[in-house]
Amino acid sequence: MSTYKAPVEEAVFLLEDVLGFSSYGQLPGFAEVSGDVLAQILEEAGRLSEKVLHPLNALGDLAGCRRAEDGSVATPKGFIDAYRAVADGGWIGLSVPTEFGGQGLPYVLTALTNEFASSANMAFAMYFGLSQGAMAALLRHGSDAQKQLSLPKMVTGAWSGTMNLTEPQCGTDLGLLTTKATPNPDGSFSLTGQKIYISAGEHDLSENIVHLALARIEGAPAGVKGISLFLAPKFLINPDGSLGPRNKLSCGSIEHKMGIHGNATCVMNYEGARAELVGEPNRGLNAMFVMMNEARLGVANQGLGLSEIAYQNAADYARERLQGRSLSGPKNPAGKADPIIVHPDVRRMLLEIKCFNQAARALSLSVALDSDVAHRSHDPAARQAAEDRLGLLTPVLKCFFTERGFENAVKAQQVFGGMGYIVETGVEQFVRDARITMIYEGANGIQALDLVGRKLPKDGGRAISAYLKELQSFIGSNEAPELAPFVKPLQTAVGDLQKATLWLMQNALTKPDNAGAASMDYLHLFALVALGHASARIAKAALEKKAREPQTARAMEAKLIAAKFFMERMLPETGFRLARLSTGADTMMSLEAEMF
Amino acid sequence: MSTYKAPVEEAVFLLEDVLGFSSYGQLPGFAEVSGDVLAQILEEAGRLSEKVLHPLNALGDLAGCRRAEDGSVATPKGFIDAYRAVADGGWIGLSVPTEFGGQGLPYVLTALTNEFASSANMAFAMYFGLSQGAMAALLRHGSDAQKQLSLPKMVTGAWSGTMNLTEPQCGTDLGLLTTKATPNPDGSFSLTGQKIYISAGEHDLSENIVHLALARIEGAPAGVKGISLFLAPKFLINPDGSLGPRNKLSCGSIEHKMGIHGNATCVMNYEGARAELVGEPNRGLNAMFVMMNEARLGVANQGLGLSEIAYQNAADYARERLQGRSLSGPKNPAGKADPIIVHPDVRRMLLEIKCFNQAARALSLSVALDSDVAHRSHDPAARQAAEDRLGLLTPVLKCFFTERGFENAVKAQQVFGGMGYIVETGVEQFVRDARITMIYEGANGIQALDLVGRKLPKDGGRAISAYLKELQSFIGSNEAPELAPFVKPLQTAVGDLQKATLWLMQNALTKPDNAGAASMDYLHLFALVALGHASARIAKAALEKKAREPQTARAMEAKLIAAKFFMERMLPETGFRLARLSTGADTMMSLEAEMF
Repeated sequence: MSTYKAPVEEAVFLLEDVLGFSSYGQLPGFAEVSGDVLAQILEEAGRLSEKVLHPLNALGDLAGCRRAEDGSVATPKGFIDAYRAVADGGWIGLSVPTEFGGQGLPYVLTALTNEFASSANMAFAMYFGLSQGAMAALLRHGSDAQKQLSLPKMVTGAWSGTMNLTEPQCGTDLGLLTTKATPNPDGSFSLTGQKIYISAGEHDLSENIVHLALARIEGAPAGVKGISLFLAPKFLINPDGSLGPRNKLSCGSIEHKMGIHGNATCVMNYEGARAELVGEPNRGLNAMFVMMNEARLGVANQGLGLSEIAYQNAADYARERLQGRSLSGPKNPAGKADPIIVHPDVRRMLLEIKCFNQAARALSLSVALDSDVAHRSHDPAARQAAEDRLGLLTPVLKCFFTERGFENAVKAQQVFGGMGYIVETGVEQFVRDARITMIYEGANGIQALDLVGRKLPKDGGRAISAYLKELQSFIGSNEAPELAPFVKPLQTAVGDLQKATLWLMQNALTKPDNAGAASMDYLHLFALVALGHASARIAKAALEKKAREPQTARAMEAKLIAAKFFMERMLPETGFRLARLSTGADTMMSLEAEMF
Repeated sequence: MSTYKAPVEEAVFLLEDVLGFSSYGQLPGFAEVSGDVLAQILEEAGRLSEKVLHPLNALGDLAGCRRAEDGSVATPKGFIDAYRAVADGGWIGLSVPTEFGGQGLPYVLTALTNEFASSANMAFAMYFGLSQGAMAALLRHGSDAQKQLSLPKMVTGAWSGTMNLTEPQCGTDLGLLTTKATPNPDGSFSLTGQKIYISAGEHDLSENIVHLALARIEGAPAGVKGISLFLAPKFLINPDGSLGPRNKLSCGSIEHKMGIHGNATCVMNYEGARAELVGEPNRGLNAMFVMMNEARLGVANQGLGLSEIAYQNAADYARERLQGRSLSGPKNPAGKADPIIVHPDVRRMLLEIKCFNQAARALSLSVALDSDVAHRSHDPAARQAAEDRLGLLTPVLKCFFTERGFENAVKAQQVFGGMGYIVETGVEQFVRDARITMIYEGANGIQALDLVGRKLPKDGGRAISAYLKELQSFIGSNEAPELAPFVKPLQTAVGDLQKATLWLMQNALTKPDNAGAASMDYLHLFALVALGHASARIAKAALEKKAREPQTARAMEAKLIAAKFFMERMLPETGFRLARLSTGADTMMSLEAEMF
């Protein structure tokens, strides 16, 4: 049976000591969480995840969701009460503007509390996570009436949200979408078609479900330029907000999946379902991307969350399991054997996870703060800079955090030996659940293409130039000798990133296959640099705090060791990635498709 | 639903053109498979795996094994007939000496046919794979009577075998073993204790099960020097070979596992079970290692086998799934989209698997041939050289093939996008099944320690010296310019291996933690070099064959491309591994256990 402890202290350290949280005080919503309030909110969120969500995690995996013949879906036992607790605690609308009933608090808090919830019970956290994504899209693109009607209900959890994109013939390539929207005389539309892989598509947690669905208005252009976004509720919504009759859409089946059994992944059949247009016709992709971008950061945090809980359980096991003796002499001479944490290779596995978790959380929070600045700042220059950084780093986090999140769950499982393969231990569920994060919200290969093909060249490379400048400036202003073990390796890695960026500029424009061939290695190189930067920032803050508050020395020392481990053993991968991507596309493109 | 095609042509190419199979003709058993016979046998094995074993793979995963209240275990539907087909085909005893009813054919054929079976249905293949391991141990350490009674029955499949090592408190550290062996007046022993994770511990496929179990004779020394090996049959064996009453051992429960549901992983309770000593008292570990070593190569081939079937299905899907357009212009202009195999990043994923499979199979077969030479040659020098190479490479293959096998199954799953997460597609089962190969038969960390701590220093480093010489000699004698793209990168990688070996010699003797801290990176570096060598050998043979037999040009070109891809994109990892391991143990050992 797994356990979970939300990393509240760590989060507060990262926000306050590393990321300068107090300097954001002028942004709307930030003053409300100054001082001790921040820690209090996080502790409350932590308790909810530890005591309410996590105890249902293994049970939900085992029980799964059940569809009755009438198309209704029952979630695992306990999920309804837990959903009530999350909703009543105000967590769903934590960062939604107060005018719609939300708490208006910084998005960075939502990102953190969602990480906690994803650690504790990812399949469950997805139910309200999708509501948050749907609310983000409605906030930006919905009409006033749509916002007034839906958002307050979604904030309380009375209604929930989904996103309906995929169809059997249409996954990554949304241009192939065929779900049809037929205009009705009253201005509404009737949707007909089938959507698949719809997370939380049908369930018993809320009284209504607001489906945001992509469809093609009859006569619209082919391809992605003819796609519109619609709001199709499970129960029709009367003008006063009360519920009308059942809409003509239903769950046809629940998918059998490798993991996240507690979440109902539905085939949704639209049979002339009544829907309202959201935003402008044929601009649906644009509106959906608002939701997707927020969702991608959410998925990145799922990767981190699973890495965190897997780590905690593996570290506990390594401290308890007695097996073998230390190579440097017994450490537990009174016992029959030493705890396996004495073995270097066990420490290696644990530290590979720990140093990632620490740096990834710092990076994730810095990007969440970018999102806050981009959406809340009154300074247009600050908004643009933050939006650039957010856009650049979103695919990096989505891809890298989910890949490492999965790999770290696998590594944690390895620490358990044979026990790790047994269901009751709990860690194999983390592996199965983590696996989907690499696939959904844009498979990781798509993230790499987004980075290389869209985000790098956008606005003449403004975002990447600014980011490289940020890195150089950090290196230039941190030349103190005690920082050298962190800053020097970072400098080498930044050099690799510059070379790789240059390689792309010189080789990808003339031959686009070179961009595709290099994309995944470039993203990895980029992510390693970003995490190296985060690790160096953590080291700097830890050294300062240790000097300032000697009672924190032991905790700060642990952070320094983890950061050093990252620099020594993880960051050198940038050279390997550069070597790989520099070989270009020729070899891989030269093999005939039939000869694969 | 997954499909499988045994790579017979590829195997014949590797054996005949790359590994010089015909030059082994003087070894016992090899003359029988000269000429077309080799391909015929492999085709027959392929058909069995394709038509009989693979159709049961998903069914077995879904149904699992069921234990009845009396402790009997039913395997999934169809397994009994399939087991009969394997046994009647003579596959279980393919390489067992003819005097015990086997076919006496080279072990390399058993290795290959087991790879096919593991691809097709790993959970099923384990049932007879364990019999083969048990037979190997009895052949080497059993008494004449034990061999005469048991081997012929095991060859026909009438009886099967298991290995019983693990206990709840004792996994890697066999010194903690507590199962007790009490001597009986007639020279037999009574075993009392509990064994866990016993694959094929109880089932309905054979009329008797021969358990090889480790236990401690009363009064024996503590630790690993007091462990003996016993033969404890499910049904007692009368002197004439007929079956007597049920022995006092039984399956207490079946584990709930992440995968290999078709194999019964049992808790075995010994309650005064009658058993015979195998080999000498207190030398059980020694005897068990014979079984373990053969089993480790078998597990390596499971990793390769799952990588192969996952690859085949992903490549098929990539050729069929239409989504998006090629970056260099439409390749399927008549269709709504191009097949995803046009995208460089999809090709990257597929080629990363393909170039591994090709090189790993060559390496696996070369090691299997070492095993044949070690056990069959009349030349003591050749035997010793082969035994050295086999010992050195066994942990490398076990660890690296299973890790990459798992990663490749994950990569293949990624090619499927959302479909890959759905049970019915079949590929997620490969991932779950592959996961255990990294854990059982000695967790991969133990393999790395075995390599660095035992195999390298053994006999004054004779094995590693000879291996480095073999690599240098290959490089020195292949300086033709058309081989340069393969041999030059290999030379760099061999240089990294030499540096890493030197680093270990200089740093690990004085400080054993450095050995542990470096072990996993060293093993990876070693494996990459060995696969680089194999890739270069393949390239050389392919170039020669292409020149000699122009009609093979297309097939040979595909092998050359895969080998080149390995050199360009996989092999440069050696530099990264060297950089990592050279950082030593200091950082990882400096973190207090409580601060993890």
